[in-house]
Formats: sequence, C-alpha cells, structure tokens
Amino acid sequence: MAEVIVLGIDPGTRCTGYGVVREVSGQAVLVAAGAIRPPAKATMAKRLGEIYKGIAKVIEQYGPHEVAMEEVFTYKNVTSALKLGQARGAAMAACAVHGLEVRGYNPMAVKKSIVGTGRADKNQVAYMVAQVLGTKARQECESWPADVTDALAMAVCHLNSRRLARLTEAAGGMR
Amino acid sequence: MAEVIVLGIDPGTRCTGYGVVREVSGQAVLVAAGAIRPPAKATMAKRLGEIYKGIAKVIEQYGPHEVAMEEVFTYKNVTSALKLGQARGAAMAACAVHGLEVRGYNPMAVKKSIVGTGRADKNQVAYMVAQVLGTKARQECESWPADVTDALAMAVCHLNSRRLARLTEAAGGMR
Repeated sequence: MAEVIVLGIDPGTRCTGYGVVREVSGQAVLVAAGAIRPPAKATMAKRLGEIYKGIAKVIEQYGPHEVAMEEVFTYKNVTSALKLGQARGAAMAACAVHGLEVRGYNPMAVKKSIVGTGRADKNQVAYMVAQVLGTKARQECESWPADVTDALAMAVCHLNSRRLARLTEAAGGMR
Repeated sequence: MAEVIVLGIDPGTRCTGYGVVREVSGQAVLVAAGAIRPPAKATMAKRLGEIYKGIAKVIEQYGPHEVAMEEVFTYKNVTSALKLGQARGAAMAACAVHGLEVRGYNPMAVKKSIVGTGRADKNQVAYMVAQVLGTKARQECESWPADVTDALAMAVCHLNSRRLARLTEAAGGMR
C-alpha cells in the first residue's frame, strides 16, 4: 500500500499549529509538529505573510499529499471570524499554490474520530493523539501547545477517514 | 519628488479587484486595473490560491511601493465575515511575502476622500475615480466592474492621504 503523508493545520493569527503524519502499513506515525508564531508586535499583513511562508516551508520540507483543516461554524463574533478567516486564507493559499487541496473537518467529528465521543475535552484529544502516533509522539507530546495537538488531531482524523473509506470500498467489492 | 506607485485591492472569494495607480508630479494616473476571478466551480482553497497568485503577479509586474485595502467592520453574518477574511488573508499574505505593508481604509473615509461625502453611492465613486485618473482611465472605465472601481478608489484615497500628510508636514515646517 502506498505511503501517504498528511498535513494537519490549526490556523490562528497569533499561533498556527501544524502537524505532519505519515501512514505506514496502516499505522499513523508522527513526522513533525510545530507552531508558527509571528512576532507579537507584527502588523496583520506581516503575520499573514509569516503564516504563508511557514506553511509553504513545511510543505516543501515534508511533501504532504493531503491537507486537513478544521471547519469552524460558530464564532464569538464577526471580528474573531474575520481574523480567523484571514489566518485560514493565508494557510489555504500556501497549500493551493503548492497544488494541495484542503479537506475540512467538523471539530465534533475530529473528537469522535480520535476519542470516540464528540464531547471529548482538549486533554483527552491530546492524550489520544500522542498514544496513536508512536514513540516519538509520546516523547514529544509534553511540549505541544493546544494548537499543535489540534493540528495533529486533524491529520489523524483525516487518516482515519481515509482508512474507513478504503474498508467500505473493500467490503463493497467482496459482496 | 520621487514617483510613488500604489496598489489598491478589493478582495472577495468570487472576484478580487485590483488597481495600480502612479503619482507623477502630484497627479494620480492609472497604470493598470483588473479583476481576479477564480473558476466558478473551484474549491475554496483553489480560489484562495488564485487570489494569492494573481496579486503576486500584479506586484511583480508593476512594482507598487504601497498597498491600500478596505477595512470592513460590519458584515451581514459570521459566514460572510469568514469568507471575506479568507480572501483578505490570501491577498495580504501575497503583499507581505513581497515585503509590502497593507494600509487599511474605512469605506466612509474612502468615499469622503474621493467624492467629498461619506454617503456617496457606488456610481458617484466610479465617476470620480475615472475623472481623477486621466485619459486612459476615462477611456477604460466603462468596462470596470464595481470591484475594480473600489480597488482604484482605495489607491486614490491612499494617494490623497499621503499628499495631505506631506502638506501638513510642510506647513508645520514653515511655522
């Protein structure tokens, strides 16, 4: 089975988390994880430029085949929706310019896919992500902020969803 | 006086208008104007990639020194704020990656700067923009959609604001 590399992104104007996950023989393994943090006093344009360049660098370095990002439907207010939209726009543009499509996942679906319930809290998601992604992940997970865990959760959810699609297809073929 | 080239942008996921304006001896002149229209059936990521690439191309072709973009504070709803935010994010990232800062203008201030009143309608703004920008603009303005006119209005407003700042500075120096 061909190896697949997935990039998960959790965009934000102050901190954009990313996680790169590789599937080897049906097992998800951590490749890299980190966060893009533009300088605190940077203008909005500079922040968005940093997000674009940061994601572009991750893509060039790890060569992901697919990208997963959270779909958000509820916001505190329109100002936060606009800000988040701008961060998403910079990150998605970097993916598209590198020929990558971005698959969106509902936050509840991500939690359900990883912890088994859509009502899991951040700690439960973080714990399961570290357990699932192998030894390196369990060693590094202490240093991950929530944005990194969320980005990795997205990547793992995307791999789960691909696996399920393959199984469903295989079951259809055996009938 | 050094020549200055300003890029005005009116971002949108369906149509992103842009206008390049040059100031020669205190007179604003049209350099180029157009719109980036991603294919109607393109995914959001593809659209944002097209906006990024389109703005990057305009910057590389015309070498603007400064960028002006509308600051929007009111939205129909959070969904439209998120979409507009994404388009803005892609366009602003393209500017920042090319080393350009983005100056935001309030829509009312733009209208006031161009027509003399913050309550001017789209047609009045379009008419004045074409009058102000010289012969080429008056010949081409019939083919401009509202997004292009708005982008040019932003560039003209930015030049007016620079001119005013220079005059204020000069007056201060003479005291």
